[in-house]
Amino acid sequence: MAGRQPVNDGNATDTPTGDTVTHDHRERTGVWFVGARGSVATTAVAGCAAVTAGLHPPTGMVTETPPFGGTGLPPLASLVFGGHDTASCPLPKRAEHLTGAGVLPAGLASAVRADLDAADREIRCGGPAAGDTRTDEELTACFADDIASFRTRHRLARVVVVNVASTEPLPEPGADRLPASSLYAAAALRAGCPYVNFTPSTGLHSPALAAAAAASGLPHAGRDGKTGQTLLRSVLAPMFVQRALDVRAWSGSNLLGGGDGAALADPAAAAAKNAGKERVLADTLGHTPEGEVHIDDVPALGDWKTAWDHIAFDGFLGSRMILQTIWQGCDSALAAPLVLDLARLLARAHEAGVTGPLPALGFYFKDPDGGPAGLSEQFTALLAFADRLRETR
Amino acid sequence: MAGRQPVNDGNATDTPTGDTVTHDHRERTGVWFVGARGSVATTAVAGCAAVTAGLHPPTGMVTETPPFGGTGLPPLASLVFGGHDTASCPLPKRAEHLTGAGVLPAGLASAVRADLDAADREIRCGGPAAGDTRTDEELTACFADDIASFRTRHRLARVVVVNVASTEPLPEPGADRLPASSLYAAAALRAGCPYVNFTPSTGLHSPALAAAAAASGLPHAGRDGKTGQTLLRSVLAPMFVQRALDVRAWSGSNLLGGGDGAALADPAAAAAKNAGKERVLADTLGHTPEGEVHIDDVPALGDWKTAWDHIAFDGFLGSRMILQTIWQGCDSALAAPLVLDLARLLARAHEAGVTGPLPALGFYFKDPDGGPAGLSEQFTALLAFADRLRETR
Amino acid sequence: MAGRQPVNDGNATDTPTGDTVTHDHRERTGVWFVGARGSVATTAVAGCAAVTAGLHPPTGMVTETPPFGGTGLPPLASLVFGGHDTASCPLPKRAEHLTGAGVLPAGLASAVRADLDAADREIRCGGPAAGDTRTDEELTACFADDIASFRTRHRLARVVVVNVASTEPLPEPGADRLPASSLYAAAALRAGCPYVNFTPSTGLHSPALAAAAAASGLPHAGRDGKTGQTLLRSVLAPMFVQRALDVRAWSGSNLLGGGDGAALADPAAAAAKNAGKERVLADTLGHTPEGEVHIDDVPALGDWKTAWDHIAFDGFLGSRMILQTIWQGCDSALAAPLVLDLARLLARAHEAGVTGPLPALGFYFKDPDGGPAGLSEQFTALLAFADRLRETR
Amino acid sequence: MAGRQPVNDGNATDTPTGDTVTHDHRERTGVWFVGARGSVATTAVAGCAAVTAGLHPPTGMVTETPPFGGTGLPPLASLVFGGHDTASCPLPKRAEHLTGAGVLPAGLASAVRADLDAADREIRCGGPAAGDTRTDEELTACFADDIASFRTRHRLARVVVVNVASTEPLPEPGADRLPASSLYAAAALRAGCPYVNFTPSTGLHSPALAAAAAASGLPHAGRDGKTGQTLLRSVLAPMFVQRALDVRAWSGSNLLGGGDGAALADPAAAAAKNAGKERVLADTLGHTPEGEVHIDDVPALGDWKTAWDHIAFDGFLGSRMILQTIWQGCDSALAAPLVLDLARLLARAHEAGVTGPLPALGFYFKDPDGGPAGLSEQFTALLAFADRLRETR
Repeated sequence: MAGRQPVNDGNATDTPTGDTVTHDHRERTGVWFVGARGSVATTAVAGCAAVTAGLHPPTGMVTETPPFGGTGLPPLASLVFGGHDTASCPLPKRAEHLTGAGVLPAGLASAVRADLDAADREIRCGGPAAGDTRTDEELTACFADDIASFRTRHRLARVVVVNVASTEPLPEPGADRLPASSLYAAAALRAGCPYVNFTPSTGLHSPALAAAAAASGLPHAGRDGKTGQTLLRSVLAPMFVQRALDVRAWSGSNLLGGGDGAALADPAAAAAKNAGKERVLADTLGHTPEGEVHIDDVPALGDWKTAWDHIAFDGFLGSRMILQTIWQGCDSALAAPLVLDLARLLARAHEAGVTGPLPALGFYFKDPDGGPAGLSEQFTALLAFADRLRETR
Repeated sequence: MAGRQPVNDGNATDTPTGDTVTHDHRERTGVWFVGARGSVATTAVAGCAAVTAGLHPPTGMVTETPPFGGTGLPPLASLVFGGHDTASCPLPKRAEHLTGAGVLPAGLASAVRADLDAADREIRCGGPAAGDTRTDEELTACFADDIASFRTRHRLARVVVVNVASTEPLPEPGADRLPASSLYAAAALRAGCPYVNFTPSTGLHSPALAAAAAASGLPHAGRDGKTGQTLLRSVLAPMFVQRALDVRAWSGSNLLGGGDGAALADPAAAAAKNAGKERVLADTLGHTPEGEVHIDDVPALGDWKTAWDHIAFDGFLGSRMILQTIWQGCDSALAAPLVLDLARLLARAHEAGVTGPLPALGFYFKDPDGGPAGLSEQFTALLAFADRLRETR
Repeated sequence: MAGRQPVNDGNATDTPTGDTVTHDHRERTGVWFVGARGSVATTAVAGCAAVTAGLHPPTGMVTETPPFGGTGLPPLASLVFGGHDTASCPLPKRAEHLTGAGVLPAGLASAVRADLDAADREIRCGGPAAGDTRTDEELTACFADDIASFRTRHRLARVVVVNVASTEPLPEPGADRLPASSLYAAAALRAGCPYVNFTPSTGLHSPALAAAAAASGLPHAGRDGKTGQTLLRSVLAPMFVQRALDVRAWSGSNLLGGGDGAALADPAAAAAKNAGKERVLADTLGHTPEGEVHIDDVPALGDWKTAWDHIAFDGFLGSRMILQTIWQGCDSALAAPLVLDLARLLARAHEAGVTGPLPALGFYFKDPDGGPAGLSEQFTALLAFADRLRETR
Repeated sequence: MAGRQPVNDGNATDTPTGDTVTHDHRERTGVWFVGARGSVATTAVAGCAAVTAGLHPPTGMVTETPPFGGTGLPPLASLVFGGHDTASCPLPKRAEHLTGAGVLPAGLASAVRADLDAADREIRCGGPAAGDTRTDEELTACFADDIASFRTRHRLARVVVVNVASTEPLPEPGADRLPASSLYAAAALRAGCPYVNFTPSTGLHSPALAAAAAASGLPHAGRDGKTGQTLLRSVLAPMFVQRALDVRAWSGSNLLGGGDGAALADPAAAAAKNAGKERVLADTLGHTPEGEVHIDDVPALGDWKTAWDHIAFDGFLGSRMILQTIWQGCDSALAAPLVLDLARLLARAHEAGVTGPLPALGFYFKDPDGGPAGLSEQFTALLAFADRLRETR
C-alpha cells in the first residue's frame, strides 16, 4: 500500500466526512501503542490500512461520520504506528491468527502486509520484564526515548500514546513502585505526547503523576474503553430514569476469551473492570441497584465476548418486570475503531492547544474524565467538542 | 377514599415534584377513557387512587418527577374518571381480575373500591354495536353529549379524551364509514376536549377529521403508546448510529396475552402496530434493516407480554455481532402511568392555550406528531415543553 | 380441612393415578421437615392440603402421574407434617408472605389454614443455636426424641425425615464437630426413619455416619434436589453427546432471592451447590468443559430464580455454535412437589423393605446415589423402581 | 486426495469407532444428492474428504462414535458423490463461498479441491426447468438413468439417494403433477436405490408413490432433518412431561439466511416446515400448547440461523414459569454430518436386506417414520438398530 505517501493524500478529500482538507499534506501523526502486539493494536493497524486503501468502509469509526467533517482531524492515511510490547510475535503473524479467529476478514492480513511490517519495525521492547533491575525513573526515561526517537525518525508532527495493553491488577495499597501502565503514561508526559488510556489500568490515574500531568499542558483522556456491556448500560439506564421506572437489581455476566479473559480471571483485575461497569449505573440511576458483575475467562470463545445482563425493575404499583440483554461482540473489532478515533481526536486537540483531561470524550470511556454518564448526553458533548475543533482551524 | 374532595386537595402540596400548588383547589379535571373498562383504564383509575392515597409511590409516572415541578399540572387528586365502553364488566370486578393476574397488588382493588365505583358510574355505552343503525353523525353527536354531560355534572374545568381501547383493524381503503376510533375522536373535538390516542387505531389520523381538528384550536397528541419493544428500539437504534455501527437486520417477536393479543392476532391490526415499530428504526437508522416483527396471541400469558429482539450488526472490517433483548413486562402497568401523564399534560396544555398536534410529546408514542425519533432527544423535547408550561403560569 | 380424617380417606381411591387403594385406610405417614418453616416446607404443606382438597391439580408431582398407579404410595391425604426449625415465624404467616410473593395463589393460605396450623404445632426447635452447649450426641438424641414422639403421638406407620433447610457451608476439613445437617440425619437413623437430603448440605454424606447408615437397614436418598439449571443440563448434555457435538464451554449464572440466595452468597455454600451442577456435565460429557457457575444473591427477586446458561460447542469441521437457556422459576414451587414425591417414595420403600441408598431416585438429585446422569435414563430407572414397588404389594 | 483408492482403504481400520473392517475393500458406495450444489451437499462432500484425510475429527457424525463400531457401515473413504441440481455453480466455487461465510474453515476448500472436482463431474442437470415439456414419467426415467449410469460407471455396490434440495412449497391439493421432490424419489425407486428425504418436501410421502415404495423392497427414511429448534424441543418436551409440569404455550421464532430462508419465506413452504416442528410437541406433550412458530428470511445471517423458543409452563399450584432457549447454529454444518450418517446407515440397511420405512432412524427427523418422539428414546432405538446391523454381518 502506497496510500501513506503524500502524493496520495489527496484521496483524503474524498473521506466520508466530506472534509475539505486544509491540513498540511506532508504532516504526519504518530500513534504509539502500549501493547502494540495485542489484538486491539493489530486490528487498528490493519484496519486503518484497509480503510485507507478503500478495502472496507470505516464502520465503527465515529470520526469518519459527517459531524466530524471540517474538524481538521489527521487523515487516516497520515497515521504512522509504533509502540511498546513485551511480546515478540510479529504483527503479520498476529494478524494471521486474528484472521483464523474471524476478527479480520480473509485476505486482509496479506493485503496490508506492508503496513503491518512497517508498524512491526517500530515496536520496542516494553517492561519491566521479570528480573528487570531498572528503577521506575530509568524505565520511564527509556520509554520516553523510544517515543521521541520514533517521532524524530519519522518527522512526525506529534505522537499520541494509547494504552491498549492487557488489564493489569489493581495496585496493592501502599505499593512503593508505580504500575507499568503508569510508567508508560509518565513516559508520554516526558516525551510531550497526548495520552489515552483505553484500559482499566492505572495509567495517568496515579496520584504520583497528577502534578506532572497538570504541568505538562498536554491533553489526555479516559480510562477504560466502553465497547459492550457498559455501552448498553449507558443507554438503558437513562431510559429507566426518564421513564421513572425503579431499577431494583442489575446483574451481569461476561464471558471473554482472548488475552483479556485470562487477565481478568485475576480477581484483582476484574475488580478494576467491574468498578467501571457499576459506576455508570450509580451515576445514572442515582443509587446502586442490587446485583453483581462477573467476568469469566472462557478461552474457547477466542476473541469474542458475550455479555448477559438481567435487569429487574418495578413499574406502576410495584409490578415486577424484567429486561435481559445478550451482547455478542468481537472485542478487538469494537475497540480498534474507537482507538483510532481517540488517537485522531487527541492529536487534533494537541494541535489546537487543548490541555488537560477531556470530559468531552466521555462517550468513549467507562471511567470518563467527568461529564455526563448517559451515552446520548456524551454524544452531544462529543459533537460540541467537534464544533470547538472546527472553530479553531 | 375521600381524597377527591376539595378539602383534601391540600395534600397535593406534598407531591413528589415539590410543586407549590397555585392551582385553584376547587378546579377538577376530567379524564374520559375510550375503552374505559379495559385493563389500561382500570389500572389507571385504580393506580391514580392508590398513589393519591399514598399507598404506592408514583413509579412510572414521568410527570411526578422533579423536572415537572411547578408546571401547573392538575394534581392526581383532582382527576375525575369516566368513559365509553362496549363491555359491561364493572370496574371493581375488572380490578379483581387484574389482581388475580398479578397486575394489581393484592388488596389494592378493595382499598380503592370507592374510586372504582365512582368511575364505573360514569361509563357510558360505546358503539357502534352490531346491528346499530345510527349514522356516523348520530354516533358522534351521542358520544359528544356523553362527554359534555360528564363535564357539566361534575363541574369540571375540562375533560381530556384518551383512547385506550383495543386496537382496531386498519380501515379498508375506500371504506365509506369512519372507524369507531375516529368517531370518538370527532366527538372529542365536538365537545371541545383535548384528545390523546394511545393506540395504533386511526383516531384523529383520518383525512376526514383533519379540517375539524385544525379548526378546533384544541391540543391533541400521539398515536400508539410506546411501552416496550419500541421503547427499547428508540434507545438502542441511536446507539448504533452514534457508534457508526451498521445495523443489517432487526427482527422482533412479541408474545401478548390479554385482549390486545387477541386483537392483534388479526393480521390487519398487527400491521397497524408493526408499522409503528418499524418506523422508529427507519427514522433513526436512515434505512430499513432486514427483519420482520411478529405479534402472537398467547392467552396463557395473561396481561404480560414478552418481546424478543435480535439485531445483527456489522462492526469494524465487517465483523458480525449480535445484540438480543428480551423484555418481559405488564402491558397495563406500563401504559397506565403514561396515560395519566398524558391526560395531565394535555389538560395543562389546553389551559395554557397550546393548540394542535404536540410533537413535544413524542417521548410517549411509537407514531409521534413529528419531532425526533430517539428517546433521549424526545425526553429533551418533553423537558422543554415542561419549561414552556411553567413559563405560562 | 377435615380431609385428613380416616372417614375421608376413601377419596384417595380417586387419585389421578387411578390407584386402587389396598392400603390400610387408617395408616398414616409422617413427613418431618428439617427446615420446617422455610419456603419449601411451607409450600409442601400448603400444597399437599390444596391438592388433597381438590383445589389444585397435582402439577409437578411425578408420583401422581399414571405410571405410579398401583405402587402403594401413601395417599397425600394420609400425610402428617412436622419438623425442626430454628426460626419462629408461624406457618400461616409464612404462607401469607409466600402469597404476597406470588408463590402461593391468592386465597390458598386461608383455605388450608387448618392444615398449616396443625403442621405448625408439630414444629420443634432445631439447633444448635448460638451458645448452645450441648454435645453432638445430646443434640442428636434430642432431635431423635422429637421425631419419635411425633410418630407415637400421631400413631404414624412411619416418619420420613426430609432436609429442606437452607444450604450450610461446606464443613472445614478437620472440623471436629458434625455439621447440623448431619446431626439431623443421625437423628433420623436413631429414630428408625427413612431420610432424604434435598439440599447440598452434608447430611448423611459424612464418613462419621457411614457405618450407622449401613447398619440401620433404612432407605435413604439423594443429595441436592434438581429443580432448575441442573435439570436442564441433565437433558441438554446427553443431547450433545448423542449428536456427537463437542461441548467446549458451559457457563452459568444464577440469580436467587429468598433465603437460598443469601445462604449461597457465602462462597463456601455456593461451592457445595456448584459442585453438583458441574458433576452432571462431567458425568455426561466425559470431560469437564470450560466455564464457571455463579450464584448471586439478588433479594429483589424474592422466591424467584433466574438461571442463564451459555454453551459454546463445535459442530462439523469445527464450526462454532451457541446454545443459551434462560430458566425463570419459583424455587419453592419447583421443589415442593418433588419433596412430596420423595417422602412418599421413601415411605413406601421402607414399607417394602428396601434398604440403603436409592440410585433409582437419581431423577430427583443433582448428586444422586449413583445411577445414570442423564434425565431420560434416570426417569427410566424411576419407572423401574415404581414397577418394583408395585410387585412387592 | 488419493484416499479414495483401494490401496488406502486400510486407513479405515483406524476409524474412531475402532471398527475392524471386514468389508470388501474394493466395494464402494454412491451417495446421490438431490440438490448437489447446495450448501448441505457441498459441506458433506468437503467434510467427508476432510475427515477421511484426517484434517478434522468427525464431530457431529453419530456413526463415527463407539456404539457404531462393528456395524459394517461403509467407510467414509469408500463414499463416491454425485447428484442432481438445477444450479450451475461448480462445487469448488461453492466451497469458497462457504469458506467466506464461515461454514468451512479457511484452507479446507483448497485442501479437498480434488474431491470437490470429482463430485462436481458427477452432477447432472435436475428439473423440471421452466418451460420443460417432459412428462413426469419422462423426467423420472431420465433421473433414474442418471443414477444408474453413475452406479455403473463407478462400479458402485449401491447408491443412496438423499434429498437435500431447498424446501419446496406444499403441493396444492388436487394438483395433477407430482412435485419435483417426488419425481426424484420415484427415480430412486426405479433405479433400485435406498432413499432419504432430509427436507420437509413431499418426496416419497406422496400417495402416488406408496405402492411403488412398498413393492420396491428398498429401505427408505425420514422426512425433514432435525438439526436445531426441533432437536431441542425433542429433549425439552419430554423433560416437562417427566416432571409433570404443564406446558401452556410454546412459541418459536426462526431467523434464517441462506437459500433456506428465502425458500421458507414462502408461507406455503414454511407451513411444511412448521408442521414438523409442532408435531414433536403434540406427540410428546399429548396436547398442542398455545403458540406459533415463525420462520423469517434474514439474508444478512448468511448460512447461520437463530432460533428463539419461549415456553410458558405451570408448576405446582399453578405458579407460572418460563424457559427460553436461543440456538445459534450453522445449518449446513449441522445437517452435513447427519446426511453422511444417513447415507451410510441406508447403504448398510440395504446390504443387510432391511426394507421399507425405518422408524429406528427417527433420531434424525422432525417427521420420522413412526417410533418415539423424544430424542432419548429415539437414540435408544438407533442403538438397537446398530445392534441389528452388527448381528447381520
